Parts: sequence; structure tokens; C-alpha cells
Amino acid sequence: MQRMGRRRSRFLRKPIEPFAVTAGLTADDVLARMERISFQGRNLATARRIWEKMLGSDATIFMGAAGALSAGGMRLIIAHLIEHRYIDVLVSTGANLYHDLHETRGRRHFLGSPQLDDAALAAERIDRVYDTLASEDEFCKNDEWIAAFVLKLERRPYTTREFLYKLGEYLWKETEHVGILTAAYRANVPIFCPAISDSSIGMGLSQARHRDQTAGYIDVIGDIVESANIVIRKPSTATIVLGGGTPKNFINQASVQAEFYDDRVGGHKYAIQIVTDVPHFGGASGSSLEEAQSWGKLSIESEKVTVQADVTLAMPILISALSTTVGDALAKRKRIEFDVSGRHLVVNGHVLPDRYLES
Amino acid sequence: MQRMGRRRSRFLRKPIEPFAVTAGLTADDVLARMERISFQGRNLATARRIWEKMLGSDATIFMGAAGALSAGGMRLIIAHLIEHRYIDVLVSTGANLYHDLHETRGRRHFLGSPQLDDAALAAERIDRVYDTLASEDEFCKNDEWIAAFVLKLERRPYTTREFLYKLGEYLWKETEHVGILTAAYRANVPIFCPAISDSSIGMGLSQARHRDQTAGYIDVIGDIVESANIVIRKPSTATIVLGGGTPKNFINQASVQAEFYDDRVGGHKYAIQIVTDVPHFGGASGSSLEEAQSWGKLSIESEKVTVQADVTLAMPILISALSTTVGDALAKRKRIEFDVSGRHLVVNGHVLPDRYLES
Amino acid sequence: MQRMGRRRSRFLRKPIEPFAVTAGLTADDVLARMERISFQGRNLATARRIWEKMLGSDATIFMGAAGALSAGGMRLIIAHLIEHRYIDVLVSTGANLYHDLHETRGRRHFLGSPQLDDAALAAERIDRVYDTLASEDEFCKNDEWIAAFVLKLERRPYTTREFLYKLGEYLWKETEHVGILTAAYRANVPIFCPAISDSSIGMGLSQARHRDQTAGYIDVIGDIVESANIVIRKPSTATIVLGGGTPKNFINQASVQAEFYDDRVGGHKYAIQIVTDVPHFGGASGSSLEEAQSWGKLSIESEKVTVQADVTLAMPILISALSTTVGDALAKRKRIEFDVSGRHLVVNGHVLPDRYLES
Amino acid sequence: MQRMGRRRSRFLRKPIEPFAVTAGLTADDVLARMERISFQGRNLATARRIWEKMLGSDATIFMGAAGALSAGGMRLIIAHLIEHRYIDVLVSTGANLYHDLHETRGRRHFLGSPQLDDAALAAERIDRVYDTLASEDEFCKNDEWIAAFVLKLERRPYTTREFLYKLGEYLWKETEHVGILTAAYRANVPIFCPAISDSSIGMGLSQARHRDQTAGYIDVIGDIVESANIVIRKPSTATIVLGGGTPKNFINQASVQAEFYDDRVGGHKYAIQIVTDVPHFGGASGSSLEEAQSWGKLSIESEKVTVQADVTLAMPILISALSTTVGDALAKRKRIEFDVSGRHLVVNGHVLPDRYLES
Repeated sequence: MQRMGRRRSRFLRKPIEPFAVTAGLTADDVLARMERISFQGRNLATARRIWEKMLGSDATIFMGAAGALSAGGMRLIIAHLIEHRYIDVLVSTGANLYHDLHETRGRRHFLGSPQLDDAALAAERIDRVYDTLASEDEFCKNDEWIAAFVLKLERRPYTTREFLYKLGEYLWKETEHVGILTAAYRANVPIFCPAISDSSIGMGLSQARHRDQTAGYIDVIGDIVESANIVIRKPSTATIVLGGGTPKNFINQASVQAEFYDDRVGGHKYAIQIVTDVPHFGGASGSSLEEAQSWGKLSIESEKVTVQADVTLAMPILISALSTTVGDALAKRKRIEFDVSGRHLVVNGHVLPDRYLES
Repeated sequence: MQRMGRRRSRFLRKPIEPFAVTAGLTADDVLARMERISFQGRNLATARRIWEKMLGSDATIFMGAAGALSAGGMRLIIAHLIEHRYIDVLVSTGANLYHDLHETRGRRHFLGSPQLDDAALAAERIDRVYDTLASEDEFCKNDEWIAAFVLKLERRPYTTREFLYKLGEYLWKETEHVGILTAAYRANVPIFCPAISDSSIGMGLSQARHRDQTAGYIDVIGDIVESANIVIRKPSTATIVLGGGTPKNFINQASVQAEFYDDRVGGHKYAIQIVTDVPHFGGASGSSLEEAQSWGKLSIESEKVTVQADVTLAMPILISALSTTVGDALAKRKRIEFDVSGRHLVVNGHVLPDRYLES
Repeated sequence: MQRMGRRRSRFLRKPIEPFAVTAGLTADDVLARMERISFQGRNLATARRIWEKMLGSDATIFMGAAGALSAGGMRLIIAHLIEHRYIDVLVSTGANLYHDLHETRGRRHFLGSPQLDDAALAAERIDRVYDTLASEDEFCKNDEWIAAFVLKLERRPYTTREFLYKLGEYLWKETEHVGILTAAYRANVPIFCPAISDSSIGMGLSQARHRDQTAGYIDVIGDIVESANIVIRKPSTATIVLGGGTPKNFINQASVQAEFYDDRVGGHKYAIQIVTDVPHFGGASGSSLEEAQSWGKLSIESEKVTVQADVTLAMPILISALSTTVGDALAKRKRIEFDVSGRHLVVNGHVLPDRYLES
Repeated sequence: MQRMGRRRSRFLRKPIEPFAVTAGLTADDVLARMERISFQGRNLATARRIWEKMLGSDATIFMGAAGALSAGGMRLIIAHLIEHRYIDVLVSTGANLYHDLHETRGRRHFLGSPQLDDAALAAERIDRVYDTLASEDEFCKNDEWIAAFVLKLERRPYTTREFLYKLGEYLWKETEHVGILTAAYRANVPIFCPAISDSSIGMGLSQARHRDQTAGYIDVIGDIVESANIVIRKPSTATIVLGGGTPKNFINQASVQAEFYDDRVGGHKYAIQIVTDVPHFGGASGSSLEEAQSWGKLSIESEKVTVQADVTLAMPILISALSTTVGDALAKRKRIEFDVSGRHLVVNGHVLPDRYLES
């Protein structure tokens, strides 16, 4: 064994520890044992440790949410992450916010199957998202509800950040139900929705416009300015991407655009992505975290992990474990504080002006 | 054999014809022989036939373009499709338009490799997209060029459709080079970019805003109104999706939102999607065309095909074959005509008003 | 709500229950909460319930193991499943058995990274399996160890089932370490390895042949006979596939071939597959369980679920949960009993003859 | 521009050339234009050039064939490659050889759809492979035909190489139809089938065994010896993998095992793989060619490309182009010559003995 020790390559330091089956393990135990296995199991375990480091650092944590996460039962996880400030900024597709609103308003999504007959579903006005169903009529009522809300707003352009705050506020006052939008409203956490026009929230806005051509103006360029300015308010940032899509790139772009304001910005310092897309077709959703380093989206020294998995499979175990071990780090966290309620975003007491100056 | 004939199941009608190798085949020949093979090869061959049917019908054809298509060498294919009106409306990610602008302005993307050292690339300010490279400094100059263009515009909100027309016009006048934006300008083909704030074009707009807080207002909700109203101007529509993403859903949404204006709209009548994402994770990019029927995004009777392939592999062969056989259909096409140049989109001579009435 | 109740479609019965975060959850709790979410998360939860049903039924349970499961830290899970008879028959790739032997012999696999320089690894004779490493020299010593074992055997053809039993026996006597091969030896559970010649175990056999041309004869056709005859010994069978590959098809083939002996065989009654391949390229690894029904590999009434996930991510949580809830079912199980030790497989006291007669 | 030239990074040498659409292009033209685009399109174009180099070198070329290639219409491509000696050795799954035999015997596969009702198919005894169908009864007759053939053979173990030669010979004499097995018989090209027991050919063999317990012995370990000895007969080797699976690894293993006989073997010098699996789950089918270098399966200096695509989409265009440009290289090729007909494989006039000595 002495000889083996000498012969052993520098590459062969840390052995794989086969996962040992024990009845009654907690999610935390399971994930701890997965740290010494291979492939995506190990990556998920690593994601928990990197997230803990994010929370123990002074980084502002962006989370991106794409894919049918709210319809698929992930919305209360995201609401929990907002409420307990595992994250500081949410960037979401419109669909995730819309399906959240649908359930916060007391409507439901339903268990279905990918083998269902879509012609039969269409005949009954049921919309299918893979194995999940919803009522088209209820969706139409949501659209009207959103349009009615939009028509109550003062006639001026709104960043998605401001608009979604007001939507969350209105929703909370009407329902007092927990969800993503209402949790963000209550926790003063900004939500950006860069592709809002590609969603049913956008459809609700367009229906308001139909009734009043001065209504429904969204200032998506203002979102870029704000997100970049959030980046420069703290020495470091982190990104947690669920599912890729526009949120992934928007968070990376915030870091790149921040260099326009302050060239000391050097990319996110921590990165987790849980995606099913792959790098080799060139699309942004599947792009590797290494590639992001070439752009300066991620720091060259960043701690990072990609988990190639469906979010609905990875997140329940990841968050069940993380929530068990992270209490202290959350309590001690020196986190960024927002006032999201107004036209101008307030960050740590500092009003971000319309025309941005140096940080 | 007689007995075999009688016994043969109704399911066993059309035999597979093994692909026969012959030197010197044209792309058209190759694709014709692929109609009787299986799997994604057959699907690509089917895509050509469905596209021919689209062109032979009275359908307005939407194309969606997501993924790094312009950086990856697909931009002149898309420009060709616009110029020769294989398609009527383009919905694109911002990146594809930005990388198109980069090359139309005389800059280049470069052959690289996914094995390159990203730290070394970052040190030389080279941005990597899988196996493709570009100069970060040239990108920064594009951003400034866009910002300067934006500052020349009248201070009011622009739909992406109007903004991108003006951008294409400005680019054509400066360069006289063919590309996606300039081809669309010259052919009066509308381009929508629902996630424009998630792109370097958005970054250019935000830099204009930085200099002048009244500049850079984009009306993405107006895009929803216009795209839905395009749908109701003709008895049928078609969708060709390259790569999924926001363009895929935006085109489907146009059909759904069109029912708000006219309940005779019954979903797209033809659909081709060339995607690498898969249905079983629930995301919109990979969702099946059958699922789209449950929503009414696609007609129950639609002719449709999904090709599970990288666009850079599928499109060169598909378009080389299609361009060989489609001349006549293009010449005879009774296509929708736009005037894209103004604040109000003009469709077949009909000005779409701010406040839309019944079709 | 009354009206809602009446209006509700027959398709909208069981609502999605968003996953609720609670600190300290057990794996069992987590998986229980995942039964009412969507996509692959729900599928994993369903897999647990179907496995419970298998154990509560009289079905003989086949498990297939493909992919680098042993190198990747899954071998003690499989050993546990064998030892506690969650499964009755294992069908494995040679690599999984070889990497199991490597660790049972006291050697290790090591944590690595896909970003390592493969030329540097080659120079140090380190073999990489994605993010996992092993010593080439230690592998060569295994090959020699296997060859030496083979040369001790009587000179006649061995089914892989018999050969692997003897290999497990020899390994247990030498090491007294738990692993897949040794657990199967001790529990008298048959292992089949249809592609044994495509593995380092095959290489060891070929090195024995090099030394003695009468050594190293494996009777893979005998495996087909035996596996089909196992199917007909009990009224029903079940299949659990990890990773696809030859084990997946071999298990399905056993059911099809069993009809040659007894036409009352109607396909497996329960099926779980955890795979990352997809159906649309036509390969067997990714083929759907529905497709398997057309062939009679699966019964039309079978309970079945596909989990699209990496085994290293799915199995630790699945087995941690299952082991918590399944004790009673395991204890009460009326399971098939083998004597694997001889030339002729003995099933429930019945010697399977060389020349099979009616079941 | 002068300054630009100086400033340009060493990384930015070769610009992307956007694919230009022209009617009437040949497959060769299309692929030539794809050499300067990105992603999998470029990779396919590179595959053609690497294959040309293989043919211009003195390398022995192994091809692996996995996935439902024969059922899917690719069998005459493979037969063509054998007949014209684009390849020297075929390693195949049993299914591809069986489905080839099915068609060579005059039976057919049929166009179907993945949306067909599998219960209805099962009721009519139709087997589905994604979108392709076949008659179960015809398959049963093939099995019987194979069993009858096996019973005619002398009672002794056969390598798959020898067995498949005799099967091809028998098939040719009965049908005089071109296919993979018959082309290999006529061209004296060896076929190895490492997982023959996981296929309907194996089922046929087991049915012969059922009738006569001395029949149907296959010596898969002999295949390892022979394949490794083929590697050491020429200074270099090449691998072309379609679809991954056991053939991929068996070809790599031949190179590794060859080092047992001659340590000058340094891995394959050229490698093309067309696969849909991905590296990050650790399985061999999707493993990268870089990883293969760590093992010595591939030379560190090898020229190599992975094309991430369905074979049915990639091969028709690749082979149509290659067959157009490769005539001269094929004519001049100094290729390895086999006599496959006997118990002992003869390579370039050299009888490979049972007990192998130094090369």
C-alpha cells in the first residue's frame, strides 16, 4: 500500500464513495452521500454546497426561472426562496408568473398524461402542458382580470419590475394567498420578465390596450438599466438558473451590461444552472458555464456547477436538503435590500435615477 | 404472396424504401429519397413537402428563429427566405438580429472549438458560442452604433416591428449589404422580437437611454396586438419554427390572441418545427405539435412535422432542396403584403389602427 | 364553486399540489410530495409506487443496469437491491460488473472533472469516464486476475449466468467484500450479461484464451434459453431498467422469447425505466414503454413509468424513499427462488433442462 | 482595417461563411458549403473530410452500427459502404443484421407514426419502432428460418464473424438480394456482433438449441481475439460509429486489447461518431472522443469529429456527398484483405491462429 501511495497519480486523490442505502434518510443525508458519487447526482449535491457559499458570501443572488415550473408544482418552492431570501432577484418567463397568478387566484392545474387525445382536450377547451392540464376558460378569465388591473394603472410605461410589483400587490390584497408574485411583493424582491410580451400576462396587457390605446405600456429597456445597476451595487453577484431560456441570458447580460457602468465588474462569482438543454447545438439555454466565462458573464474564478436534470426532479430534493442546513447562513446573511414599489428602484436606500451615473 | 396480401394489416401499407447511394445526387434527390426512410431523416423530407403546401396555400407564413443561427452561418438562408418570400413574418431572438447586424456591418464570426480555453479567450476578449468566436470589442462598437442610431429616432415608443424596420433601413443605407434586417427592410417583411430586452440590441437601447432618458422606449405589447391582427387578415396561417424559444411561443400566441379579435380563427393550418429540445420536461421549446393542438395554437387538422435536429444541419439540405423545387409555387403565391415602415402596420392596404376593431 | 364543479371537465380531476418546502424532510416525504407535481419529478414518485406494487405482486422482477453505474457510485445500491431481494434477476453490461469487481477487490474510482486534459491523463495512464477516473494499471491487473480465474475453470462453455456466479463466489472467498457480484453469489440471484464480449470481463476471458485455446468459452445463447424459461415459471414478470442498453432489450426479449415456450405469456406486467435517451431517434435504449406494448414485451394493461433522468440523480432518492416504506412488502414477498450455482439453473426447485420442454 | 488586422486575436483566423442558398446544389456542394458554418452542420461537413483522409491513409476502417438503422432505411447505405470498401470491418447490433435479413428475404418494414395506438397494433401483431412498423408473424418466420439454418451447421462454436459470414452466404444463395449480410459475404468483409444474444438472431439460435442441445454455440470471446488481431495487422486504424451502443465500445476495445498483443498500438488514428447520446450522463454511447483519448482508445493526435445527429438525417447527405468525391481514393486504396469464410480469419494472407502469438 505504501508503494501504491507513491505510484498513485496526482489525478487520483479523492475516491468515489458508493451510495449506501439506509432506510429513513433525510433529504439532507441523501444529498450529502451524493457528494462522492458521479455524474449528475454529484452535480446536484455540489449545487447545494455552492448555494450555501452564495448565502455565506456578500453576493447578490439572481435566480432565473424558465420552463413550466409554476404549472408543474414548483411555484411554492420559488415563493419560499423569495420569502426567506435564498435569492434576491427573480428573472422569470411570463408563463411562470401567469400560472402562479392562476393558482394564487384559486384556480388549479391538473394531473394529466402525455398520451391524452389532444383533439378531445381541444373539444373540451383543456390546455395541455405535457402531463399537466388547465382550463382554457379559466385562463381567459385570468386574461380579463389582468386587463382590468392594467386599466386601473396610471397611464405611463412601467418596467416589468414595477408592473409585477403592482400586480403582486393587487393580487395579495385580493387573495392573501402565497405565491411567487405575492411573496415578491411582500418581501420587496424585484422580479424582471424580459419576454413579458411572449406570455399570457402580455396578452392581458394587449387586451387592456385594445380597450384603451394609452394603456399597457411596458418599458423592457428600463429593466436592462435596472438589472445592470443592481449588479454594481454589491461587490459580487451569483446566478441560479432553472431551465435556461430568456432568464438565463438576461441575468448574464446584467453582468455584462454592468461593465458599461463600472469596469470593475468581473462577472458572477457563483453559478448554478439546472438545465436539460445541451451545449453542442449552440443555443443559450444549454450553453456551458465555461463558455460564459469567455464572455465575462462569469468570473474566471467562479465556483459553478451545471446540473443536467429536469427542475421538477432536482429542486424538491435540493431545496429540502438546503432548507435543512441553511438556517444559520440565512439568518446571518448581509443581503441587499430593495424598495421595489416605485417608479425608481431603491437599492440599499439608494434611489436608482432614470439617468444612471457611475456607481 | 396472395395469402400474404390478404393477411397484411391495414397498418402495413407503405413500405420503407432503403436509401440508395448514387454519386452526384442533388439535395433535392437526397431529400426525395429520404421520404421513405424513418425517424428524423423522414421528418426532414416531410418538412419540405409541408413547406411546399404552405406556399401553395393562401396561408400567411410565420417563421421563428431562435438559437445562435446568425453566428452559426444561417443568416443568409433566412435573408433568402425573406427576400424570396418563402415566409411572410419573422419572429426572432434579439441575438440573431444582432449577430446579423454584426456581419452586415462587415464584422465576422470565426471558426473555433468547444475545447478552447475560456480563460485564454476571456483574456483576449473573445466571446465563444460553442465552436464559434467573435470579438468582444467589435460587439461593444456595435452596441455604441445601435445606441447612436436610437438617439436619432423621434422620442416615442416603437413596436419592435417598427424599430427593426428602421434599424434595417439605416443599416441598408449605410452598408448596402444583404442580411436578415436589410432583407426584411427591402422586402417589407415585418420582424418581431418579443425578447428584445434580452439581447445586445436591448443593451444598445439601454445605452441610448443612459445618455437620454427619453430614448429607447420599445412597445412590446404593441407587437402582440399587431401579430394577432396579422393572423386575422387571412383565412389561414402557418408556422415554421427554428430552434424553439420565445419566437415559437410568440407565433403560437398570435394565433390564440387572434381569437380575441375573431373567434373564427382556428389555429395554424401548417406547422414545421426543427428543434433539439424534447417534450418530456414540459418546456415550451420542446413541446410537441400535438400538445399545441389542445390549446388551439394549431388546428386539429393541421399538417405538421417536428424535426428533431440541429438547425445548422437540417436547414442547408432542406433549403437547398426546397429552393430547387419551389420556384413555381413562389411565383404563383398569393401572398400577404405589408407596409412595415410606419407607426401603424399596413396589411394588404389596410391600416391596422391603434385600437383594433373587429377584423 | 357549485357551478365550477359542474362545469369541470372529466379531464380535470386531480389538481397539482405545489411542492411545499419544509426543513428536515425524509427522502420518503420528499417523494410523497412529488406525486402531485409534474414532469419527471412526478414520474420518479410514480416509479416508487409501481415498484411497491411489483413487490406486493407475485411478479418475478428483472432489473437492467447499463451506463457507468458502478464507476459512478451506484454499485452498493444494486448490491442492496439484490441482497434484500427488491429484484430477482439482474441483467447488466459487462462494464458495471467489471467496475464492481474493481472496487470489491479494494481498488477505487476517483472524483475527476470533464474539463481535465485527456492527453495529460493518457500520459499518466488514467482512464476517464466523464467526471470519474481510474488507474489503467489497476485495470490491467484486474484483467490478469480474471484471466487467472478463468484458467482455473473446467474447460466447457458457461452461460454468463453460471460464469458470473462462479466469479462472484471466487471474489467473495478472496475478499469477503460486498458488491454486485458477491451479493448475487450470496443471494443466489442470477446475473446475465448479454454483451459480455464488449467489456473488460470479456478482455480477461480473451486473455485466458490466449494462454489456453480451450479456455474462455461463454454460451450467450444459453442465456436466452434460461432467461425465457425464468419468465414462464411465474404468472407475471416486471422490468426495472436503469439506463437502457442491451439489458433493457434482453429483458424485453426474455418475455418475447418466453412465448415460444408458452403462449400464455403476455408481456411484463409492471415496468419502470430510468433513461436519458429519447424515443424519436428509433433506438432501443430510448424507446417508449408504449412502443414495447406493440411488441408484446409489455402487457397492454401493464403499470408503467418512464423517468427521463440520470440514474445517479434519480436512484439515491428513489431507493432511500423506497427502502423506508417497503420493509413489510419485502418480508411478505412470495419470491422466486433460484439455485444459480450449477450448469443447470434451478428455479423453485425445478431444474431447467438443457433441452427445454413445455413449461 | 490595417489596425484591425494587427489587433485581431490569434483565435480569430478563419471566418464563418454564411451558407448561401442556390437552387440545384448537389449534396457535395451543400456539404462543402457547410464546412464554414457552425455547430453540428459544420461537424457533418468535417466528417466527410476525415473519412476522405481515412481512405487516403493506410488505416483499417472499423464501422459500428447501432440503433434501428436497417429498419429505418439505412441498410443499403451500409451495404454500399461494404461493397465499395469505404469500410473494412463492420461491428453491428444483432437487430440491424436481423432487420437486414428480413428485407433481404423479401419482407418489408413500413411507414408508421409514433401516434399510432399500440394496443391496436398489438392486436394485429404489428411491432412498432418509433414511426416504423413490421409484421410480428413475419419476424417469427425469420426466427424459424434462422433456426433451420443453424441446425444445418456443423456442431461447434462459431465466432459471430464466422457465423455471420455463413449466414450471409446462405442468404445470398437463397435470395441473390443485396443487403448488409450478403454484401459482407460477397466482399469478404468481417462482421462482428458482440451482443448477438440480445437480438432476434440470438432468438433464432436459441430456438435451434431448443431442438438440438448441441446446436447454436457462439464464441463471442473469439471475436475479441480476432478484432484485436485485426488492429495489429496494419500500422493504423480508424473508427466510424453510427449510433453508439455495443459496437462503439467493441471497436474501441479492439484497440485497447490490441495493446495486449503489441504495445506499439496507440489507439485509432481517425474517428467519426454520429450519435444522439451526450457525454454528461457517463454512458459509453454518448462519451466524447476526447475521453476516449485518456483510455488510449484513440490516439492523442487523432483527427476526430462527433456529429450530434440522428443517423437517418446525417448519413444520406454525408454518403451522397462522399460517394461523389471519393472515387479516386477508393480506387487507390491499399486496403486490408480478409478471407472471412473459415474457422480461422485470414488477414492479408496470414492465418490468425487460435492461440495468438506476437503480431
